[in-house]
Amino acid sequence: MPVPFFSAVAVEQAVSPHEAYDAVREGFVAHAQGEWSMPPKLYVTNYPAGDFRAMPALGGGHALLKWVTSFPGNPARGLPTVTGLVLLSSAETGQLEAVLDAAAVTALRTAAAGVLAADTLCRAGAATYAVVGCGVNGAETIRMLAARGVAPLVWDVDADRRAAVADRFGAHVARSVEDALAADVVITVTPGASVLYPPGSLGIGQHVSLMGADGPGKAEVAVEELGRARLFCDDWEQASHGGELAAGVAAGIVARDRVTELGRVLAGTADGRSSAEDVTLFDSTGLAIQDLAIAKAALAKAQTLDLPTVEL
Amino acid sequence: MPVPFFSAVAVEQAVSPHEAYDAVREGFVAHAQGEWSMPPKLYVTNYPAGDFRAMPALGGGHALLKWVTSFPGNPARGLPTVTGLVLLSSAETGQLEAVLDAAAVTALRTAAAGVLAADTLCRAGAATYAVVGCGVNGAETIRMLAARGVAPLVWDVDADRRAAVADRFGAHVARSVEDALAADVVITVTPGASVLYPPGSLGIGQHVSLMGADGPGKAEVAVEELGRARLFCDDWEQASHGGELAAGVAAGIVARDRVTELGRVLAGTADGRSSAEDVTLFDSTGLAIQDLAIAKAALAKAQTLDLPTVEL
Repeated sequence: MPVPFFSAVAVEQAVSPHEAYDAVREGFVAHAQGEWSMPPKLYVTNYPAGDFRAMPALGGGHALLKWVTSFPGNPARGLPTVTGLVLLSSAETGQLEAVLDAAAVTALRTAAAGVLAADTLCRAGAATYAVVGCGVNGAETIRMLAARGVAPLVWDVDADRRAAVADRFGAHVARSVEDALAADVVITVTPGASVLYPPGSLGIGQHVSLMGADGPGKAEVAVEELGRARLFCDDWEQASHGGELAAGVAAGIVARDRVTELGRVLAGTADGRSSAEDVTLFDSTGLAIQDLAIAKAALAKAQTLDLPTVEL
Repeated sequence: MPVPFFSAVAVEQAVSPHEAYDAVREGFVAHAQGEWSMPPKLYVTNYPAGDFRAMPALGGGHALLKWVTSFPGNPARGLPTVTGLVLLSSAETGQLEAVLDAAAVTALRTAAAGVLAADTLCRAGAATYAVVGCGVNGAETIRMLAARGVAPLVWDVDADRRAAVADRFGAHVARSVEDALAADVVITVTPGASVLYPPGSLGIGQHVSLMGADGPGKAEVAVEELGRARLFCDDWEQASHGGELAAGVAAGIVARDRVTELGRVLAGTADGRSSAEDVTLFDSTGLAIQDLAIAKAALAKAQTLDLPTVEL
């Protein structure tokens, strides 16, 4: 049986930023309503070089497995940090339905989650947007904002990279990182190796989608700031163990009942922001149900694209 | 980066039965010596239709993930029970190295494990061989025995199937299932839905490789027989939870210290059969390190074959 293969380019051809956004929103809601499920991910570690994650999801008539890496030292040798494949199968028959480039799916769903959280949680009248970090996922976030008519301020520690990405998507380079971090709506997509928001730095009414820190010891915001913000996450299990909130949990600052999952807000079963003065933080750890949303949207376009196939 | 794709046919072209046997032997030894590791597998279930397993392994410079199904009702609708992909990556850089048909890899490593266990554990002078069950993995077992110069008796509940498989590999159809089950060396590759060996039926000096039962409630040998045999398995963790031995553990007949892992026998750190009178049983549950052994052997032949590629 021929199974379509979506390269990175084919994933972008198949799923527009708007479609990715809508698909990820539907995935969050289906997960919040218990229709889509997500068994715990599995790690294969080969530290210090890096690790592999096998991320499963089940929903919408499909089972999905993403086999994806994190090898932080790779860019220094000209190789991608994140690489691998997404496998989409029929939940009814087990037959493989599609194979997709994992980095492209990951970038698209990460961008969608960060922008979706920002749209859902930012205050009415928020006027300035910024994206900090212009790597693969940061660039995709800027592309998604641009597709939605928003020209964000952008920042990256690499001056050439921030200029190139701003130019590519019609965005503006911020005068400084502080300038970017002070926007009404900020999406941070850094490796999480150093804190962007020290104690006391988050502004009244600001929203920040924290996309970067996804492992122990990584953080984009100081743990003290978690105490004064309204906290949201994509998944409590993941966020309380390996996300931005994990340090707050360990410090006794963050308890389960202070954190709301974004899917519940989108499904209408939990409140989002309560006032224009709230500081809202969204901690993204990255969910397999988001990958499933993108893969499902891509599969729906398979017939319209001239895709290579693998023969099982 | 182009990544070679091995279809089922390409897996067979790349890895001969002899090479599969040697590769699986090396994998067992490397695992027993702690060089290759195998994190627990992950299940995505959609019962009663079936389930998906994500099986990881790490060793020999590679990381492997097999995404493979068990949908027992599939043959009735003309679809395979077992299907999926094996993904082989570099453990040093995380880059994908090969994508392989999972059913073909599974058949080859299952056949290799069953025959390897039989060769290792059978008594000196064992003269008659039988294979019971002529599905995909049973047929591959018969092919492997034939390649090693052994013409086994074969049996299957389906008369057409047993005749076709015997004919294909120069084997002989047994006169009855009892006849096949009485051979000196027997490899059972059935679904495990009904017991082949009732209490008291195993012969003095006999070896049986039990390849079939791989889940709760499945068994090819009566639990009482476990009490009088020398017991071996591929992996204690898997075998004591979901394999043939699990019922013996539950019944209090089988304790950890009565069961020897095959890899330790092959590595020379544990004893195999102790006398010509022993009844030896090998409980196979199927290990990701076996898949890794086959995938690694296939990758070594990638340059010699004209393989299609997927572009990451």
